[in-house]
Amino acid sequence: MRVLIVCAHPEPRSLNGALREFAVERLRRAGHEVTVSDLYAMNWRAAVDGADFLNHEPGQILKVEAASKRAYEADAQSADIATEQRKLLWADALLLQFPLWWFSMPAILKGWIDRVYACGLAYGVGEHSDRRWGDRYGEGMFKGKRAMLIVTTGGWASHYSERGINGRMEDLLFPINHGMLYYAGFDVLRPFVIYRTGKLDEGRYRQSQAEFGARLDTLWTTKPIPYRMQNGGDYQIPSMELKPELSAGPHGLDIHLTENSGVDHQ
Amino acid sequence: MRVLIVCAHPEPRSLNGALREFAVERLRRAGHEVTVSDLYAMNWRAAVDGADFLNHEPGQILKVEAASKRAYEADAQSADIATEQRKLLWADALLLQFPLWWFSMPAILKGWIDRVYACGLAYGVGEHSDRRWGDRYGEGMFKGKRAMLIVTTGGWASHYSERGINGRMEDLLFPINHGMLYYAGFDVLRPFVIYRTGKLDEGRYRQSQAEFGARLDTLWTTKPIPYRMQNGGDYQIPSMELKPELSAGPHGLDIHLTENSGVDHQ
Repeated sequence: MRVLIVCAHPEPRSLNGALREFAVERLRRAGHEVTVSDLYAMNWRAAVDGADFLNHEPGQILKVEAASKRAYEADAQSADIATEQRKLLWADALLLQFPLWWFSMPAILKGWIDRVYACGLAYGVGEHSDRRWGDRYGEGMFKGKRAMLIVTTGGWASHYSERGINGRMEDLLFPINHGMLYYAGFDVLRPFVIYRTGKLDEGRYRQSQAEFGARLDTLWTTKPIPYRMQNGGDYQIPSMELKPELSAGPHGLDIHLTENSGVDHQ
Repeated sequence: MRVLIVCAHPEPRSLNGALREFAVERLRRAGHEVTVSDLYAMNWRAAVDGADFLNHEPGQILKVEAASKRAYEADAQSADIATEQRKLLWADALLLQFPLWWFSMPAILKGWIDRVYACGLAYGVGEHSDRRWGDRYGEGMFKGKRAMLIVTTGGWASHYSERGINGRMEDLLFPINHGMLYYAGFDVLRPFVIYRTGKLDEGRYRQSQAEFGARLDTLWTTKPIPYRMQNGGDYQIPSMELKPELSAGPHGLDIHLTENSGVDHQ
């Protein structure tokens, strides 16, 4: 299978760098093809602007969605964007690897999503009618592909637990797992998270590496997070609200799961 | 009072541009001082790297937290970072204004947080003991200041409601409101959100503008989102989990509120 690893850490001689090297080797040894987009090494440009769209005329008002669609359809996107899109379409699985900065991804990786996720590719796809609201949330151009986050954080696991002060890790990552990955069609696996990186001694590193290896070995067989499909009958169209008979009562973001068993804590 | 508006839209002739101009005028007419950081106009660099820290030696391993702390303490930060920090310290209120891209802020704004929020300023502050876990979540260098998000999105309000498919807007913004703003000490006001921007005719624009004006007029008097203080006795130290007797049962991210009444939908 083909794996694209997109990583966002400024220092290759870091825990993130070590995990990336480990992943590349582990996956290649298992016979997979691996491509790495090392955003810092690539000096990836993070901010969407008019220069992304080669058929956007300077001086013209920039409407990002329309400009993105027009450039995508006319094959008139900035070359760095088109290259990443080809990698995405090539891959069977996408791994996004990053340190959790301010409870989200580093800016350079957000800029990869903002720029590579063109209108017509990652959104703005499919029929809008009284039965369907576009190909998104379980459908879309990346349907059939898998995705997984690999996240490091200095905080403790308990700080990110069900009742931890930072908010539950699943909820903090919901905008990414559900909003960026599942939205565009990916089957999203539970994230692999390493906590308390400041206290990572040799023993804990080896243990984390072993767990990470096991997650990589089961990349193709692990059951994805059971998010509800948008067009599968669970949501009302066009309000896109979960039907009243499903998950009654307030349960937070877990109402968007068909079952709760798939989301375990690390 | 003094207001810093940080905005992140590539096109000044946009809804975001109009809202910004409106805010500046409204606040100045009310006698407030206003400073605007227009990140696209400033060509703001989004990615944290070694060049941010003038006392970081090339070739040395970059540990971001330590390098940030060292540079902040030695007054050896990149000039663009130090300038934004001075604006932050000057301001009584911070407004972050952006289009919701992929259920989060645009990369250029995330890069403002990543780079301006230095160790020793926005985190890594205060005593760690069995009574306190640093000055954060309700304490910290920005205590006494207010903050509010101004967000635009193409999606419908119902798509972001309690049971809407995108996830509840409060939950999507939790990593920002709670994790970036409240963490660093700000009192955080309910966000001002404009939905369905693609269908914003003159009538709805005027209505939105009036609502926005009212929010700006009450910036100093509105009750903030009632997040729980970290060191106020509600959380166990060091696990930082909410004490068992508080908010029993699963309620999602709302368990971190002292009451629910403060978070209304737009």
